[in-house]
Amino acid sequence: MKRSQLFVKTQKDAPADEVSKNAQLLIKAGFVHKEMAGAYDYLPLGLRTFNKIVQIIREEMDAIGGNELEMTALQRPEPWQASGRWDEGVVDVWFKTELATGQTVGLGTTHEEPIADMMRQHVQSYKDLPAYVYQFQKKFRNELRSKSGIMRGREFVMKDLYSLSKDREEHEKFYELSQQAYERVFQRLGIGNSTFLTFASGGSFSKFSHEYQTICDAGEDIVYLDREKNLAVNEEVYTDEVLAELGLDKAKLEKVKTAEVGNIFTLGTKYAEAVDLHYTDEHGERQPVFMGSYGIGPGRTMGVIVETMADDKGLVWPANIAPYHVYLVSIGDVDTEAEELVRELEAAGIEVLHDDRDERPGSKFADADLMGLPIRVVISEKTLKNTEIEVKSRTEENAQLVSRQKAVDTIKSLLKQD
Amino acid sequence: MKRSQLFVKTQKDAPADEVSKNAQLLIKAGFVHKEMAGAYDYLPLGLRTFNKIVQIIREEMDAIGGNELEMTALQRPEPWQASGRWDEGVVDVWFKTELATGQTVGLGTTHEEPIADMMRQHVQSYKDLPAYVYQFQKKFRNELRSKSGIMRGREFVMKDLYSLSKDREEHEKFYELSQQAYERVFQRLGIGNSTFLTFASGGSFSKFSHEYQTICDAGEDIVYLDREKNLAVNEEVYTDEVLAELGLDKAKLEKVKTAEVGNIFTLGTKYAEAVDLHYTDEHGERQPVFMGSYGIGPGRTMGVIVETMADDKGLVWPANIAPYHVYLVSIGDVDTEAEELVRELEAAGIEVLHDDRDERPGSKFADADLMGLPIRVVISEKTLKNTEIEVKSRTEENAQLVSRQKAVDTIKSLLKQD
Repeated sequence: MKRSQLFVKTQKDAPADEVSKNAQLLIKAGFVHKEMAGAYDYLPLGLRTFNKIVQIIREEMDAIGGNELEMTALQRPEPWQASGRWDEGVVDVWFKTELATGQTVGLGTTHEEPIADMMRQHVQSYKDLPAYVYQFQKKFRNELRSKSGIMRGREFVMKDLYSLSKDREEHEKFYELSQQAYERVFQRLGIGNSTFLTFASGGSFSKFSHEYQTICDAGEDIVYLDREKNLAVNEEVYTDEVLAELGLDKAKLEKVKTAEVGNIFTLGTKYAEAVDLHYTDEHGERQPVFMGSYGIGPGRTMGVIVETMADDKGLVWPANIAPYHVYLVSIGDVDTEAEELVRELEAAGIEVLHDDRDERPGSKFADADLMGLPIRVVISEKTLKNTEIEVKSRTEENAQLVSRQKAVDTIKSLLKQD
Repeated sequence: MKRSQLFVKTQKDAPADEVSKNAQLLIKAGFVHKEMAGAYDYLPLGLRTFNKIVQIIREEMDAIGGNELEMTALQRPEPWQASGRWDEGVVDVWFKTELATGQTVGLGTTHEEPIADMMRQHVQSYKDLPAYVYQFQKKFRNELRSKSGIMRGREFVMKDLYSLSKDREEHEKFYELSQQAYERVFQRLGIGNSTFLTFASGGSFSKFSHEYQTICDAGEDIVYLDREKNLAVNEEVYTDEVLAELGLDKAKLEKVKTAEVGNIFTLGTKYAEAVDLHYTDEHGERQPVFMGSYGIGPGRTMGVIVETMADDKGLVWPANIAPYHVYLVSIGDVDTEAEELVRELEAAGIEVLHDDRDERPGSKFADADLMGLPIRVVISEKTLKNTEIEVKSRTEENAQLVSRQKAVDTIKSLLKQD
């Protein structure tokens, strides 16, 4: 993609009311635009990164048997009344609105009820279970305060998977499988080493739920972390009794600020019983379906990656989710040579954002740093005099001159190290 | 994908209140689920087809220079107040709701205002123009009646592209380019031959807008069609004066019922002036940006394809947008052979839905017809006795026996004909 054909401009300043670091940087780099607190447009570069995160999650959900679908945002009251969650006293982040016919409807804050209700059409017998359904879907939550940029939105996409199992035993097998999938997701997103499986409060059907918490100063959670065991405990369940149960030694725990990037939860038969999602078992008995829910917010995770990786020059993206791999700065009259290089790189599967604009080199370098693509390449009359180009990793201080012939191989191997 | 791993079941009946043919069939085939009038969940097969339609449109929008982004559904009043469209007396399909802070917000029915407002950050000089931005984004429209299934939703995805040009001349060049792109889209979606460029009413900045109308009994429009000239006139501008202007002969026109699958519109400087989207021209003068809008509803188009192609046995999908290419029915103890065939087909880029369930063959055949995949393949002990499989196009009456060796080639060439 040529910068001259991409409308996006970097900005000197973020809006004065924007207090979160992730949104400030994403706005300045032209990745998002703020509509209001907690509601951000995704501009082309932001959308590309967002979609790459989505695709990684999708692959891992498909790999454990997930069936992708997409539920509506508009919600009829009935399934929510059945579970008791229609009431604003119970769920205080509803957006509600009215149909032209006068009926009140809500905007989905989550989807346990409509999923369970819809699945009644598809689950009658034990032969229809287990089933695993998931979606990337816009949730709406009427948060009173929304000061964490894209980490906590009033409007945001959630990957929510729901497991439907015959019983607790079948549920627990998948619950374990989902943990392995989540670990692969966060590893591929580049935050595997700073993200920890965390015990948090459960519900009627299990003592604990599990969260994935990433060490992050902008996070809203406090966890107690055992680095050796690769486990953490959310402060909400941090008691001597729980530590004993989990075999954790208080003296070895580190208190850290974290952001929740995923959670998995045993729902049990609560929603199935509420909306009458039952199946007939092997003995002809009617049984409620045993459910679990498994969330990851791709936008929230993108915000956490910004918060934890950016430096004082701007964004820093892992190669897996960078909107493009290479920021190519061409200086002077080198159009033909630059375009030939782009063709070679693209043929090797390397995505290039080519800054072909008639701008000062210093301003192009500043944009390259701010946008945070993994590798900056400079091609100019000066470098071409020795049939060379200049290559620099976003996180390295110094550039190296590379012979034009070895350009693609060098960039490829730098991306692999990332 | 194995049917045994896909939760979806076909249904005997659609809900009693569902009057549209497209939704009835899509529900029975398990492609969508009805939440309420005008709001449908997309189940896995429906979502795959929907996403394939989206991808075709995306490729054609990228090819004419479109930059993809995604705006929010939640809308601040200000840009809409500036254009005069916040008022329900002017736009009667608003859903409005209230932030926890007390401010009223709307759910976007369209996005001219927020796009123009956002673009002020990126357009200052004539050097920043033209710019072409588009999105696949959920619109919300509070329709009083919503009886056309997925053809007219209260909640639906729209591809809306907005062109920002320096002046009318630059605008018109892109307007023409967009017509060629739209023609390629409808050709690739399999409705090119029944879809016609149609003159419709314009606005302050042009006498006409243009629609793409597909001949369809379930449509809501009436057009007068000149098949020879490949042109139509919407009844709303069907006057002797207009016919004369367009060089059309009344006697040659055919009155047909159609569904609008796309529209392109010259907006002029209306929205730019409303929200103060100006640029500085070559002479240092401040000028309003000249805009156009270009819509296609991928869900609506999917509905039109169902309406016009389905037969009395069920859905019929063009190969380009079928959720899978092949419905493989395995009968009896042929798992190993069936899985080997699936591997061969998938290696050749052919997507297979394998009905591996323990069901009667007749019920599998009925599902194959109802779901409408382009090709049905049967593999059984009987066919394998002669090292053959049975192959049938969805739209052909009779199946043919094909030697197992030629299976992939035969299916490939049948798909190409589609």
